[in-house]
Amino acid sequence: MNITPQNISGFVVGEGCFYVESGKDPDYKLGYRIRAGFEIEVAEEDKEILESIQKQLGCGSVYHVDFGRYKEYSRKKWKRHVKYRVSNQQDIAEKVIVFFRQYPLFGKKQKVFEVFCEIVKRLQNKDHLSPERLEELKALVEKLKALNKRGK
Amino acid sequence: MNITPQNISGFVVGEGCFYVESGKDPDYKLGYRIRAGFEIEVAEEDKEILESIQKQLGCGSVYHVDFGRYKEYSRKKWKRHVKYRVSNQQDIAEKVIVFFRQYPLFGKKQKVFEVFCEIVKRLQNKDHLSPERLEELKALVEKLKALNKRGK
Repeated sequence: MNITPQNISGFVVGEGCFYVESGKDPDYKLGYRIRAGFEIEVAEEDKEILESIQKQLGCGSVYHVDFGRYKEYSRKKWKRHVKYRVSNQQDIAEKVIVFFRQYPLFGKKQKVFEVFCEIVKRLQNKDHLSPERLEELKALVEKLKALNKRGK
Repeated sequence: MNITPQNISGFVVGEGCFYVESGKDPDYKLGYRIRAGFEIEVAEEDKEILESIQKQLGCGSVYHVDFGRYKEYSRKKWKRHVKYRVSNQQDIAEKVIVFFRQYPLFGKKQKVFEVFCEIVKRLQNKDHLSPERLEELKALVEKLKALNKRGK
């Protein structure tokens, strides 16, 4: 499939999601976990697009989402969906972010991406392990979540 | 706003719609109207993206959709939406199609686009004014509608 890097940026503006998972986690020093992620979900018929993006970004995995709330999909006669996800923190910093710096996003997604990058930078700086810096980080996470809220 | 033509193709794969309006219309020779259209709908915050696409394609218009079913949007706390639409048949043939031949789409949207182009070619050939060729055209229109069905 012939998809250029700029095609990918344009596609991700519409379909991609830069997000952060966060919540209490006793395994972490301050009992709080923050992890960055990137994902794209499409109908199964466009799985090849995700595989091409995976190849060009050089990380992440592509899989069917037919568990959890997606179990209901077949009953509703929705199409099966597939997802591309990058959850490895090093890949997020060194591959995903590097790619979208080189081939910029635009519109609101670009604003979301900037907040996402700032969070990833602070995570690399271990801010989530310092009590006062963790609070600032949590505020950024809330900002990202608000920006990502669809409201449709 | 800095959007490249290949960004536009990528964005349109996710967000654009190549469609055909068809139905009985006594104004037409055979009492049946077929018109091709292209549109993209986004939340109001990304209106600038549509304006940039309008500029680069050199046709169509951008407008708010707060009528008809969209009236319900505000009640549901959905975001206001804006639409970019090209409905001029000459613009569809000479600007929209020319653009996406130069900067190709991919995935399922590329398949939809090929059927759309075939319909537009036949409309330019006045197939909708010939009884037997109209039937073939109607079959292609059904094919396009089936491909465009989301099923989610």
